[in-house]
Amino acid sequence: MQVDEHDIEDIALGATVLGTGGGGDPHVGKLVAKQAIRDHGPVEVIPPDDLDDDALVIPTAQMGAPTVAVEKVPGGGEPTASLERLEKELGREATATMPIECGGINSTFPFAVAARKDIPLVDADGMGRAFPELQHETFNIYGVDGTPAVVSDERGNTCLLETDSNEELEWIARGITVRMGGVGYIADYPMSGEEVTETAIPGTMSLAAELGAAVRSAGENVVEAIREVTSESIYGEAVSLFEGKIVDVKRRNEGGFVLGHVELDGLGPDHGSTMHIEFQNENLGATLDGEYVATVPDLITVLDRESGDPIPTEKLRYGARARVLAIPTPPIMRSDAALDVWGPRTFGLETDYSPISP
Amino acid sequence: MQVDEHDIEDIALGATVLGTGGGGDPHVGKLVAKQAIRDHGPVEVIPPDDLDDDALVIPTAQMGAPTVAVEKVPGGGEPTASLERLEKELGREATATMPIECGGINSTFPFAVAARKDIPLVDADGMGRAFPELQHETFNIYGVDGTPAVVSDERGNTCLLETDSNEELEWIARGITVRMGGVGYIADYPMSGEEVTETAIPGTMSLAAELGAAVRSAGENVVEAIREVTSESIYGEAVSLFEGKIVDVKRRNEGGFVLGHVELDGLGPDHGSTMHIEFQNENLGATLDGEYVATVPDLITVLDRESGDPIPTEKLRYGARARVLAIPTPPIMRSDAALDVWGPRTFGLETDYSPISP
Repeated sequence: MQVDEHDIEDIALGATVLGTGGGGDPHVGKLVAKQAIRDHGPVEVIPPDDLDDDALVIPTAQMGAPTVAVEKVPGGGEPTASLERLEKELGREATATMPIECGGINSTFPFAVAARKDIPLVDADGMGRAFPELQHETFNIYGVDGTPAVVSDERGNTCLLETDSNEELEWIARGITVRMGGVGYIADYPMSGEEVTETAIPGTMSLAAELGAAVRSAGENVVEAIREVTSESIYGEAVSLFEGKIVDVKRRNEGGFVLGHVELDGLGPDHGSTMHIEFQNENLGATLDGEYVATVPDLITVLDRESGDPIPTEKLRYGARARVLAIPTPPIMRSDAALDVWGPRTFGLETDYSPISP
Repeated sequence: MQVDEHDIEDIALGATVLGTGGGGDPHVGKLVAKQAIRDHGPVEVIPPDDLDDDALVIPTAQMGAPTVAVEKVPGGGEPTASLERLEKELGREATATMPIECGGINSTFPFAVAARKDIPLVDADGMGRAFPELQHETFNIYGVDGTPAVVSDERGNTCLLETDSNEELEWIARGITVRMGGVGYIADYPMSGEEVTETAIPGTMSLAAELGAAVRSAGENVVEAIREVTSESIYGEAVSLFEGKIVDVKRRNEGGFVLGHVELDGLGPDHGSTMHIEFQNENLGATLDGEYVATVPDLITVLDRESGDPIPTEKLRYGARARVLAIPTPPIMRSDAALDVWGPRTFGLETDYSPISP
């Protein structure tokens, strides 16, 4: 499929639903991707199966605290510079780029890279949602080396990393983004076509486009619209968790992340109940009156009660009326190996993973 | 000249005098350099003038907080790995390595690299003393680009940096060393032979060897011995500042540095007076009864009153009897351009630079 400026609107909106509170501000991502498409033409999006086994796919992304990303708007060339530095290191041009996660910034930025470089974008990613850290990738879980990787910034600084493990990649690259002012631009997990087919979550960009189109026209019926689209996907049908008013938000920048929680008092059918959601860039776990009802790796998304727009964690504010829903994570993200990397306890939640069910 | 295991003892001791409280623990540096010489043979030390104009010199060093370096002892291969990564990037083997500063670790570590790689070591460095940051180099002041540079650690993680400025190199590389556990190993300021001749401070390794030999046999007459050696060098004759007992030491790790101060109550001729010395890894400024008597870039060195051994800032302790002396800095380090980078105000001292005089 060809993605033009209009499609970017849908993808950004749908990816923000899948971004589960994180993945960056869709407004910034849209601006950057649309500008690149305006300048360089539409982007060809290809399914993983269309890649030759020995194709070179270089994923690109923004890395850092979403609260900083909103104030430090990128020019658009930064992730392309990271990709080009990695091409230089590998002595080979990228066949395609790919998102590493679903989210407002990180599902759209790679379109800017693809447009600028005139290469296709693979309809897949490595999280099927947003997660805060670089080892939170199906690529990592199923054996791909995250390095050589590049982190660069808008001032032209680049760091080419080779690390002992993908956890060390995360740790050192995170330190670099902090020094770069809170946000950096990465190219990592360079992969063969075969590795993409074996490890990536397929179809997430077209799902985002579909979700975005559905949410845009749904208004107050947003939960129903999301349910319909997800029920036909590899994810499974979304579940409505709560309807309420935000009565408390706490956020702090720590170690390059935004950590915090939000509390909602129930409205309508949930009157008298309280929902508490913890986040680290992304929503991690939701409790209803003190009991967990959804946790990572299932997706927890907060939507504006009237417009149906997804609300990223950095935009949560006191007084807002919201709906909270959960989307089951695809099976590839629920294996024992996967839960070892992103199960609730890896984020400090005191509960085991229990899949949500309708 | 050929440097063997015995010479390393003198160089480490003399470089610790020139290290002005910093530059790392000489014990660790000696162990690593002597082991490499035992395994690979003595190191040829050449004057800068012996380099061909198009020679490739790659300086190597440890970077980080000295207090951490004492507890996280390196194997010796780390700075060699950084040099080799930089050789790979430049597509060329290093003609020689060189220290970036004078100090217990950083004057001896490059000998381990030279021995392992069987390349000569240039009798010169970029500070003529120790300083805490990577832009504190005559190389930087006189126009050499610090990058491409490599920071690596004992776990095999390497970061290849290209930065917009040498200040950005320091800022990002420092962040990386913090993530590497407080200490990293760098290869930076790759230089032509011509650039070394134009920007380095010549003869500092042979001066360290001479100083070390003199201090070793001097005992209580250490100040006189240092005075004699320095008076015939490009530095100028050392000045005795104070004799006293340490009554207060404050140290804190901050941003990858050891910051603090030491206070001494006068003994003998200085009875009734107080000396206060501020440090950031290295001694920065000394006040006598509240008035500055010596500051960067002049060298301030604290010596054990009985043995004459120089005491690094991380080894200063309550109750120790000490002598404090200052050594004038060579003229190349006192230019206006140099004082803009390492004058007292750049370290937050509220005074202008006033050269010490005998």
